[in-house]
Amino acid sequence: MSDSLHLSGERFQVVYELRGSSDEAAAAARAIGIEQTVEFPEELVERGSIREQIFGQLTDFHAIDDDVHEATISYSVDLTGGELPQLLNVIFGNTSLKPGVRVKRLELPAALLRMFRGPRFGRDGWRERLAVGKRPLLCTALKPMGLSPHELARLAYQFARGGIDIVKDDHGLANQPFCPFEERVKRCVEAVGKATSETGERVLYAPNVTSPADQLAARAHFAKREGAGALLISPGLMSFDSVRYLAADDALSLPLIVHPALQGSFLVHRSNGISHGVLLAQIPRLAGADAVIFPHAGGRFSFTPDDCREIARAAAEPIEGIAPILPVPAGGMPLARVPELWEFYGNDVILLIGGALHRGKDIIATCREFRRCVEAG
Amino acid sequence: MSDSLHLSGERFQVVYELRGSSDEAAAAARAIGIEQTVEFPEELVERGSIREQIFGQLTDFHAIDDDVHEATISYSVDLTGGELPQLLNVIFGNTSLKPGVRVKRLELPAALLRMFRGPRFGRDGWRERLAVGKRPLLCTALKPMGLSPHELARLAYQFARGGIDIVKDDHGLANQPFCPFEERVKRCVEAVGKATSETGERVLYAPNVTSPADQLAARAHFAKREGAGALLISPGLMSFDSVRYLAADDALSLPLIVHPALQGSFLVHRSNGISHGVLLAQIPRLAGADAVIFPHAGGRFSFTPDDCREIARAAAEPIEGIAPILPVPAGGMPLARVPELWEFYGNDVILLIGGALHRGKDIIATCREFRRCVEAG
Repeated sequence: MSDSLHLSGERFQVVYELRGSSDEAAAAARAIGIEQTVEFPEELVERGSIREQIFGQLTDFHAIDDDVHEATISYSVDLTGGELPQLLNVIFGNTSLKPGVRVKRLELPAALLRMFRGPRFGRDGWRERLAVGKRPLLCTALKPMGLSPHELARLAYQFARGGIDIVKDDHGLANQPFCPFEERVKRCVEAVGKATSETGERVLYAPNVTSPADQLAARAHFAKREGAGALLISPGLMSFDSVRYLAADDALSLPLIVHPALQGSFLVHRSNGISHGVLLAQIPRLAGADAVIFPHAGGRFSFTPDDCREIARAAAEPIEGIAPILPVPAGGMPLARVPELWEFYGNDVILLIGGALHRGKDIIATCREFRRCVEAG
Repeated sequence: MSDSLHLSGERFQVVYELRGSSDEAAAAARAIGIEQTVEFPEELVERGSIREQIFGQLTDFHAIDDDVHEATISYSVDLTGGELPQLLNVIFGNTSLKPGVRVKRLELPAALLRMFRGPRFGRDGWRERLAVGKRPLLCTALKPMGLSPHELARLAYQFARGGIDIVKDDHGLANQPFCPFEERVKRCVEAVGKATSETGERVLYAPNVTSPADQLAARAHFAKREGAGALLISPGLMSFDSVRYLAADDALSLPLIVHPALQGSFLVHRSNGISHGVLLAQIPRLAGADAVIFPHAGGRFSFTPDDCREIARAAAEPIEGIAPILPVPAGGMPLARVPELWEFYGNDVILLIGGALHRGKDIIATCREFRRCVEAG
């Protein structure tokens, strides 16, 4: 076995929550550091550099409850090669296949953080781009699917006239024959431009660039050239590294909003998966997302207020060299809940109201009502 | 609302398994067709073309058990725009966030299947490339992580000399400083070439090209130029569409093996997620994977014999225009289980034995023993 191995010595930590008896949890904790690294019978690895440097090391293990334990495993930063897919693989690749193990927190040292540039804009970038000082930012989605680009553009105009800051595609708008990407982007940019020329306010249109892997760059740059002000992407459909790729593109330089499509199965079971804070804020932030959409508690999904607080905290907490980003609570919120959402998240939030803006007779008037809610404070 | 909508009329079906009382399941079934398409308050969508063509339609609902129901929803093929990320989004995007809903089966019509070319090689392609007639194919992984390219190449030589058909990188080998991708590929190709020139047999080396989104094509083509015989990729880390992208590349034209890293959370809870057959065979096959790795029952993971049978069936069942592929049961199997695995899967399987090949004193001899197991039949 290799004895010429010289790793940097820098390590990052993953805190796992383990379900089961204390014996089961202790066995699971010991297994993780092997499973996530060498994936090899432990007894066949001779003492030496692989054991010392490559193995994940159990640095803490304690009970939270009779059947819930927490284990901290440290991994060499070198195992990631500075690449996001491999970082995710070390964190939870094979272990995702084991019931009873959930990633709870990541503790990432400067040596690892330096490998990622994170969000290009972040919280402050949104406010600069929109020239909005303190209040929550407002967002809505172009929907329902089935409308033509012309009809969606008409909606985009109304939203922009009504004082919405960010008008995004519904995440299900891709490049369907009834709503082709390029035509939609052209028309919506034009419609939003018309509205802002009338109001003098800034509004960002964010088309959905979730697309086949080889079309992502083309769609993103098409949107940029046409005048889109931000982009929407679903990392669960395309990968977190696609987000990083867009964020790293100097010629693109647009704020990125991520949507949680297909990520739910990591979240809904407390006994396996990845915590809300890690999956919906810490990892997207590392990847370079500027804002993260998720369903707020009490809507038609299953997130709790604690889950939402965890996401908001992970979006905002100071991380060396990685800008804070904005949470985007959504998921069928009615206008009546805006004051509660504002209180819950504070000013640093993008409030996303979708279908509810269509409930009044006049969309522009309903948007203005939404806007007044966050100017009242 | 739009009344100029003219979709093709072709529809595909998703069978969902729903947990909860019959009332809860009925409500969930009604919600899915809206959630996965318009994501809009139903009562705000006027009668007409969107309701008729865009909404998912509940075509069947029945009880399996007191608290398990099955709902079939049909969706317009046009909603996918012929794109894999959006197909996955329609199948389970937002609904992945709902506890109690699991994707059980996909029923895909010719109109949808035509949008995907599927595996370039498939079951028969492996046998042709390897010139192996009937017996199970043999595979192993280069590990443990921490070995240098030189040391891994030495192992690759031994495996190839011992009669292994496919020598793949461990899925955790990326482009780490202690084992750079290009050096590893060069050395392992060379080592396998040396062995085959001695034995006269064919052996395919499959390096892991799981990588940052913008490096995938370069790594895959580097591997091809150097003489790799197949590629390994983890769609859970990079996206299923990355697999499709590689499979569609005429200039690349290498068989693809997919690994289930980070996909476990879709599988381990029976009450939410995606069935083993769909996630580990039907979708990879549509995407163009030629072989799918998964942990066989009775190892250190939690798959049952039925899960494994479901995967094998979905890999093999006739699908119009989409070649059958090979299951690759793995997950810490000892040599002693080879006869049982052979009986379970039949001849059309790639048996992947990893760490166990290192248990003997002499790796070449242990590989030959493995090979004899499948020539004994």
